[in-house]
Amino acid sequence: MPVNLKAPDPAALHAVAGVELGTARAQIRKPGRRDVLVLRLAEGASAAGVFTRNRFCAAPVRVCREHLERSGGAVRALVVNTGNANAGTGERGLSDARSTCEALAASLGCAPEQVLPFSTGVILEHLPMDRLLAGLPAAVADLAPARWAEAAEAIMTTDTVPKAVSRRVEIEGCPVTVTGISKGAGMIRPNMATMLGFIATDAAVPAALLQRWVREAADASFNRITIDGDTSTNDSFVLVATGAGGLRIDSDQSPGAAQLRALLVDVSRELAQAIVRDGEGATKFISVVVEGARTGDEAAAVAYAIAHSPLVKTAFFASDPNLGRILAAIGYAGIEDLDVDRVDLHLDDVQVASRGGRHPAYREEDGQRVMKQQEITVRAVLGRGDASTTVWTCDLSHDYVSINADYRS
Amino acid sequence: MPVNLKAPDPAALHAVAGVELGTARAQIRKPGRRDVLVLRLAEGASAAGVFTRNRFCAAPVRVCREHLERSGGAVRALVVNTGNANAGTGERGLSDARSTCEALAASLGCAPEQVLPFSTGVILEHLPMDRLLAGLPAAVADLAPARWAEAAEAIMTTDTVPKAVSRRVEIEGCPVTVTGISKGAGMIRPNMATMLGFIATDAAVPAALLQRWVREAADASFNRITIDGDTSTNDSFVLVATGAGGLRIDSDQSPGAAQLRALLVDVSRELAQAIVRDGEGATKFISVVVEGARTGDEAAAVAYAIAHSPLVKTAFFASDPNLGRILAAIGYAGIEDLDVDRVDLHLDDVQVASRGGRHPAYREEDGQRVMKQQEITVRAVLGRGDASTTVWTCDLSHDYVSINADYRS
Repeated sequence: MPVNLKAPDPAALHAVAGVELGTARAQIRKPGRRDVLVLRLAEGASAAGVFTRNRFCAAPVRVCREHLERSGGAVRALVVNTGNANAGTGERGLSDARSTCEALAASLGCAPEQVLPFSTGVILEHLPMDRLLAGLPAAVADLAPARWAEAAEAIMTTDTVPKAVSRRVEIEGCPVTVTGISKGAGMIRPNMATMLGFIATDAAVPAALLQRWVREAADASFNRITIDGDTSTNDSFVLVATGAGGLRIDSDQSPGAAQLRALLVDVSRELAQAIVRDGEGATKFISVVVEGARTGDEAAAVAYAIAHSPLVKTAFFASDPNLGRILAAIGYAGIEDLDVDRVDLHLDDVQVASRGGRHPAYREEDGQRVMKQQEITVRAVLGRGDASTTVWTCDLSHDYVSINADYRS
Repeated sequence: MPVNLKAPDPAALHAVAGVELGTARAQIRKPGRRDVLVLRLAEGASAAGVFTRNRFCAAPVRVCREHLERSGGAVRALVVNTGNANAGTGERGLSDARSTCEALAASLGCAPEQVLPFSTGVILEHLPMDRLLAGLPAAVADLAPARWAEAAEAIMTTDTVPKAVSRRVEIEGCPVTVTGISKGAGMIRPNMATMLGFIATDAAVPAALLQRWVREAADASFNRITIDGDTSTNDSFVLVATGAGGLRIDSDQSPGAAQLRALLVDVSRELAQAIVRDGEGATKFISVVVEGARTGDEAAAVAYAIAHSPLVKTAFFASDPNLGRILAAIGYAGIEDLDVDRVDLHLDDVQVASRGGRHPAYREEDGQRVMKQQEITVRAVLGRGDASTTVWTCDLSHDYVSINADYRS
């Protein structure tokens, strides 16, 4: 059961001028489900992306990087399949990803390097190219602007609900639309971006600026979530600016640039948090805030130590205020000169520890009350400096084990 | 159910001349179980230890380090309680650990700094000093050489079987005995040593040499196991040499030194592996071998990435050869310049991947056959150099979640 997350209302997902979407049921792995998605972008659109840092990055990730570079961001289409990650597949995997782009480019009348390929699913198996290529014409025939809900559904794997966020605002007197989708529920500790996030706006943003923004948005969203600490081979996060609306941004200094950037970060964060809310087996949504660190990296190391600890995560699952486990995680986060006698720990409004030990006024029943909530904020204050960060995660439940023990069966 | 691990036969645990052990039921946390252990060492014994690197190290760990230094290793007693870790307890925790040593020293007629204290159990709660001090006289009255089985039982927490290893050999014509005990089943990713390992020999070994050996033994045993990646606040591993037997070792060059050192490493490794075999919820015992790394640290980083991955561990639990998860873990282990096209992966005698992709001859049923075993060796060959290491771990099962969600209730 996802934590405070519902499937989006299709009517609330605004079309983005310059983007059409189409899906198909290609039986990549299982029959009957949408498993291929094509996004067509209008001429003049620019795209930018960030991708997994896993050294075993999947073939489509390598091809995405090549194509973004060769096309200078002048992308005309994205193609996504679920059910098979095309990772750990060597030369044949690369050739499969390239053939997919070529087939779609021929059908849409653009260059192959203007197509970005994405795959998600099982690792170490070859793509069923016959079925994938056979599915493309159906997805192309389905292309239409009002297909975001179907698109969000088509990229799901172990997700239990589709994830989409849409906003329509006015910036500098121009109506601007931002709509995005994401997927992911396990193998989630993005290290640049997660598999998969796609966000489109009808504003015009040059590719170089969009590339900077996509990194900044990832760092504030997809790079701040973790479910199980496993960085996927396929993480990809792509921002698209079609320029088909009225707002034109030329640089950070353009009127409306700051507002659009903030909107993109906001949508990214909501999509990233949706992945945690639908984390495999998740019953709670946990925000881990670390303050008083010397550097942002130090804050992140402590936040991830807490967010990855199986003992901390099972305690959240059990609503058990066994909070010494959080102190233990802070202690092994790798800060060699951490003075534990300066560390404070809070659970929402309850101070648990002060100066490295149990807070004198802390009562078990107060900890218990917070632990029973569905949404909990852990706040660790290190007392070393001014840097801080927030990481979002979920608990570790029986269902996580069930889902991952049964994934392929 | 522990993996190929049975409770030791008490008759097979040889007494070590110069060591007496006594236990008591002090109701530290739960009534009716042995929860206090005292080891008395003969005059002239030397002891050396390695302790957790967790910055939130427990009060008894701090006091152990002080006492080892002040006594120069001339230790006369160890005192252990379970049920409460005396960690995250500030000044009062230190004072409690010191009072415990003082009380035992008074009873045994030695100096307080000749007593080493150890605690294990819940973090962030104060020791029930009244009950602990009341239990000491009973443990002292119980002191006898043939109590290793009871001692192994008295230090258990979530362990399902007591862990003890005993060897009697002849070195340079002298009979030499080595007997040790360990405990631990969760919060296991020792970073110097694990909570708790105690090994005693009746050979004579000077404290400085013993200190070197305890580090080397830890690095080859307790520092190569992981259950959940959580480094405890209380990890402690102590070697004792009573000198009450016939063998005298003065330096690494003494006759028999190499043999005794190898024996101590061997016993350490068996005790460390016993902790993994009894890992919380473990159904499989996994050896992760990484070869062809540039450095030992690099090999260890890859081995731990595999051994900590919840996705890899749940796949082992399910006997599912979803081996792409192992490649993904290798890929995110932090080797920035890893050439994945040189990576091979083996599961026992089955080659799964070659040159970064699926091995042409790999068949799913071969992977399945190995995954069904109770003991499995994963071997990753990086193709970068000559360094290698082995880490031992277990799978991640439903019972791990149950045990840790219920631990305090």
